[in-house]
Amino acid sequence: MKLKEGDFVLVDFKGKRLLKRVVKGKTLTLKGENLNLESLVGLQIPTRLGSFYLLEPTLEDLILYGFKRETQIIYPKDAFFIAYKLDLSKEKKVFEFGSGSGALTAVLSRLAGEVYSFEIRERFYKLTRENLQKFSLDKNVKLYNQDFLEANLEGISFDAGFIDVKEPWLYLDKALSSLKGGGVLGFLLPTTNQVSRLLKELNGRVCCIEVLEILLRYYKTNPERLRPEDRMVAHTGFLLFCR
Amino acid sequence: MKLKEGDFVLVDFKGKRLLKRVVKGKTLTLKGENLNLESLVGLQIPTRLGSFYLLEPTLEDLILYGFKRETQIIYPKDAFFIAYKLDLSKEKKVFEFGSGSGALTAVLSRLAGEVYSFEIRERFYKLTRENLQKFSLDKNVKLYNQDFLEANLEGISFDAGFIDVKEPWLYLDKALSSLKGGGVLGFLLPTTNQVSRLLKELNGRVCCIEVLEILLRYYKTNPERLRPEDRMVAHTGFLLFCR
Amino acid sequence: MKLKEGDFVLVDFKGKRLLKRVVKGKTLTLKGENLNLESLVGLQIPTRLGSFYLLEPTLEDLILYGFKRETQIIYPKDAFFIAYKLDLSKEKKVFEFGSGSGALTAVLSRLAGEVYSFEIRERFYKLTRENLQKFSLDKNVKLYNQDFLEANLEGISFDAGFIDVKEPWLYLDKALSSLKGGGVLGFLLPTTNQVSRLLKELNGRVCCIEVLEILLRYYKTNPERLRPEDRMVAHTGFLLFCR
Amino acid sequence: MKLKEGDFVLVDFKGKRLLKRVVKGKTLTLKGENLNLESLVGLQIPTRLGSFYLLEPTLEDLILYGFKRETQIIYPKDAFFIAYKLDLSKEKKVFEFGSGSGALTAVLSRLAGEVYSFEIRERFYKLTRENLQKFSLDKNVKLYNQDFLEANLEGISFDAGFIDVKEPWLYLDKALSSLKGGGVLGFLLPTTNQVSRLLKELNGRVCCIEVLEILLRYYKTNPERLRPEDRMVAHTGFLLFCR
Repeated sequence: MKLKEGDFVLVDFKGKRLLKRVVKGKTLTLKGENLNLESLVGLQIPTRLGSFYLLEPTLEDLILYGFKRETQIIYPKDAFFIAYKLDLSKEKKVFEFGSGSGALTAVLSRLAGEVYSFEIRERFYKLTRENLQKFSLDKNVKLYNQDFLEANLEGISFDAGFIDVKEPWLYLDKALSSLKGGGVLGFLLPTTNQVSRLLKELNGRVCCIEVLEILLRYYKTNPERLRPEDRMVAHTGFLLFCR
Repeated sequence: MKLKEGDFVLVDFKGKRLLKRVVKGKTLTLKGENLNLESLVGLQIPTRLGSFYLLEPTLEDLILYGFKRETQIIYPKDAFFIAYKLDLSKEKKVFEFGSGSGALTAVLSRLAGEVYSFEIRERFYKLTRENLQKFSLDKNVKLYNQDFLEANLEGISFDAGFIDVKEPWLYLDKALSSLKGGGVLGFLLPTTNQVSRLLKELNGRVCCIEVLEILLRYYKTNPERLRPEDRMVAHTGFLLFCR
Repeated sequence: MKLKEGDFVLVDFKGKRLLKRVVKGKTLTLKGENLNLESLVGLQIPTRLGSFYLLEPTLEDLILYGFKRETQIIYPKDAFFIAYKLDLSKEKKVFEFGSGSGALTAVLSRLAGEVYSFEIRERFYKLTRENLQKFSLDKNVKLYNQDFLEANLEGISFDAGFIDVKEPWLYLDKALSSLKGGGVLGFLLPTTNQVSRLLKELNGRVCCIEVLEILLRYYKTNPERLRPEDRMVAHTGFLLFCR
Repeated sequence: MKLKEGDFVLVDFKGKRLLKRVVKGKTLTLKGENLNLESLVGLQIPTRLGSFYLLEPTLEDLILYGFKRETQIIYPKDAFFIAYKLDLSKEKKVFEFGSGSGALTAVLSRLAGEVYSFEIRERFYKLTRENLQKFSLDKNVKLYNQDFLEANLEGISFDAGFIDVKEPWLYLDKALSSLKGGGVLGFLLPTTNQVSRLLKELNGRVCCIEVLEILLRYYKTNPERLRPEDRMVAHTGFLLFCR
């Protein structure tokens, strides 16, 4: 890939990663080393300049290093798992309620055909829009600054849906009636109290309920001293899926 | 979805799941209850017949309950994670070496644009082909019963690749030269010895190495007695990614 | 150690472990191989007879392979952790309420000076007594077939206590008033609902609350193919400690 | 417990814990609040002074908040587990090689009858001695600033032993010959490479090999929002036990 002005590039500096834009008059300085961002125009990447490795960013890089966030995001690893349980493909239509910073929206956009995203809080609605537009990830996404209960979904039948709000049980009727029969509905829930409450409310109304957590354990990459990292992320949230 | 003869349907019988085909003259009997599979033609699903819930199968269902297997498969949860780290999308071309039963192939097919799959063992090559064809998952997949080293890849430049064989280090030259600059290469490795060996061989040749495990912890779904399942899968393999 | 009649011996037969007694007229037969238990009198162990390894049993062996159980036991690994959090030593007095099969009682007996054990269900009271007496683990243990609420503890001041019953919040007043100031009180709770409820009831009455789980991950011991076991115990219970 | 001059007291200040000594002329200041340590003489603890909770320290508190350390210590949770696998009791004699800061030594001292502790590095030998003496934890401990290979163990027969050095395989002959038949030998190993190497060297010389990790997962203690802590310790070392 040949860099043009305005392109985003992943910079790996001794293990530290940043997402930078190729723009005029800007220089990145890390520990005394300089990278003139303007001079990158026309450069073929991946390449190395001093201690700077320059790479084309993946979707994960865009989300982790490029998205602005104001709350905890749904991590890409969880987002792909969610897309898997929602059984997404390019022929499918999915809704999400509670877009936060748009991390899940970006992944849904890549994996589904059409994404309807609802967010009641204006600040987060704007944040999602800004993040998606900045990286051109909004092609098949419709963003609504709206309570899901008030959404006009007449004539639309969704293959799947995902709800990430504090009191998801308030939206069950609407969510279930918006889904095709057999469609998958998913939830992210930070606490066990919410899981218990939602399970109670789902009782008798859906089938195939699954509750789970995803844990990733990273290893240090020294081949002579292979061992897990000392610390790990122990909790991002409980996931619940049903049909 | 209205069932036609030949369709596959997911049967949930008191938590036990099976994938069955709508065919003439067959009956499924579980604990004394009968489900006449022929009689399902024309039926709208999801629906319930006695204790049998009938649902449209997801890709996960096809792989877990429909694929024949002769070895441990790459589980769909790992497969989606792999697709995420490989940064797949419908514009991308990916190769895999070591298709096993075709579980990863099926997921790559859904998430990537084009999949080249190499398998040296004839039995597994045929198994992958059979599994994919049975469920029409082979549209954008090219299957080769061939050692990856002998593959003629002239003129093809891959965005990403995945290797799941016993001695992956034997294929590094070929794999790295088949990838576009910056493309992601992934590996599944059952043992720490293989991880150490591969890390040694990768040293100085790639960047952005990550080694990790994915652990899923399922919960019992009784809202009044929420608790993790008593036992869990503790290991399916180590994943290594690099660029 | 030289075996006498009546001694217990740990038998390891190709990885399978059993606890057997050296008694007249008994023979152990596993996969066609015989071990005449009577003939072991006078034998020096550890030793090997055919495929049978004979070892002196540890406390863990007695509990895991020798204790009769009717419910899930507190595993020795949890029991030692409990003893650690209770800060036990040979100068200390500890109570437990809900002895189950006596597994924790046995460990407390080894690590504390004096153990008062209460069990309301007669069947379990007898089971604990039988298990402890059989292996002479009851020297410093007082067993009561009694509701903890009705226990006469006048004049006794405990250094620590442990409660393993379904509704532990019913016993907080009694437990806290039976402890020395600063003494540690611990609980085993299978479900998150119980943890939430107990936390609510403890609020403002104790300090230094900790809630945690212990997970053990075993590895296969082939040095050339080092890897975690395929499956693991994912949950035995939540532990809560406070002072 | 009534505090005397020279006593150690655990101070809990809004969740932050410190171990302090009751001494003349010293004041502890945290976030603008003062605790005059001299004035504590004669005070009955547990008690509360302003935001300071004062408690009698447990062995865990002494190790975690009172021990000086220069390397990663064996955490008390691992130490108690080690004591459990070594089947310690007050009748037993145990050796350790590689005392580090003395954290395991302190736990062995509490649980075993007699502890022989060897440490080749003078700095760590002195550190262990200092830590144990400071808290009077050295009653049944013999400390040697000596290579285990050069230890004169004639006439001593150990029930159990534990080795925590970089190349434990160098000490197998000596360790195995110092143990009673059937005695348990344990090891702490930070890396998988060391585990593989040690397994190779143990092959055919011992039985009942177990390799495992202990993971502790702590929970936030808000009853209305029960959830695991965001991050956890993912690795302190692999434990290997054999007989």
